[in-house]
Amino acid sequence: MDKIAIGPMAYMSVMPTLLVGANVDGKPNYMTAAWATVACMAPPMVCVAVNKARYTAKGIEENGTFSLNVPSVGQVIETDHCGLVSGAQEDKSGIFRSFYGKLKTAPLAEECPVNIECRLFSSVDCGSHNLYVGEVIEIHADRSCLKDGKPNTTSVQPIVYAQATYYGVGQEVEKAFSAGKKFRKR
Amino acid sequence: MDKIAIGPMAYMSVMPTLLVGANVDGKPNYMTAAWATVACMAPPMVCVAVNKARYTAKGIEENGTFSLNVPSVGQVIETDHCGLVSGAQEDKSGIFRSFYGKLKTAPLAEECPVNIECRLFSSVDCGSHNLYVGEVIEIHADRSCLKDGKPNTTSVQPIVYAQATYYGVGQEVEKAFSAGKKFRKR
Repeated sequence: MDKIAIGPMAYMSVMPTLLVGANVDGKPNYMTAAWATVACMAPPMVCVAVNKARYTAKGIEENGTFSLNVPSVGQVIETDHCGLVSGAQEDKSGIFRSFYGKLKTAPLAEECPVNIECRLFSSVDCGSHNLYVGEVIEIHADRSCLKDGKPNTTSVQPIVYAQATYYGVGQEVEKAFSAGKKFRKR
Repeated sequence: MDKIAIGPMAYMSVMPTLLVGANVDGKPNYMTAAWATVACMAPPMVCVAVNKARYTAKGIEENGTFSLNVPSVGQVIETDHCGLVSGAQEDKSGIFRSFYGKLKTAPLAEECPVNIECRLFSSVDCGSHNLYVGEVIEIHADRSCLKDGKPNTTSVQPIVYAQATYYGVGQEVEKAFSAGKKFRKR
């Protein structure tokens, strides 16, 4: 074993690349985020960590709603732009066409193939960031991206984020809940 | 716009594939998980959603500690196995060699190139799952996987999880905090 202790840091192996949508002062705003995942199966929930100083945090707390929008690899330039520029300095409402779903106050980016509409369920004050946990109220998706009623990874072409770099999804390695059956045979 | 509302579901575009380590009744156990991300920058925190009925939930609450271990694509079989079999039915302590770090009660899987040692900070009862937020106390990594003191994605070869399928990390698309600078030029 040649392990080394590298100290505590905000590390995760791979993450999704998303745009967090929130209305701020009644206007749609989108912030790039990777610190997000599923939080619960029943009811379906997701969570996203947002720096407390961010314009988006203001919008989420103002409305108690937000969205997670999944951009495709082809949208990486505008996606990264939304992480470089704050809505406090620049109006980002025109970067994507916004539409609204059931919640009325969570803006959804039309150009993104998948849009997750969330109602704020809980907020954990972690220090620099609030971890917002939201109940998924509806998912909107491009019809062309669906397979068996769910977003299909090959069609969505999501952006993988790791160590300040954007990647595509790579080669399929194995099927989950299946590959492990080979374990005993070795 | 050809959007369709597909209903609320526990969807996320891409996720990490991890092994959640916890001591249960004093013995190391590893559970496969993908519902995890970074929760905070300062102090560094991560979070992971665990079904309340899981053996691992018992261990996390017993000790107030857990680990997130990052397997490589080459470890996908044993990784998926840990998601098929419960520690309540089968002793999983021999699948990986365990070592302990600062917390003494969070088992770390030696074969995994990166091991994140966490102290439970907060637990959000979301319904079927508890979202465990843990402060990162130490990260242990294989010396051979480091670049500038941090785990290097190309060396770690993490497993991307999406829609019940394991993938490798794909081609680099762009650098984050950089690609967006091209936005204005278009």
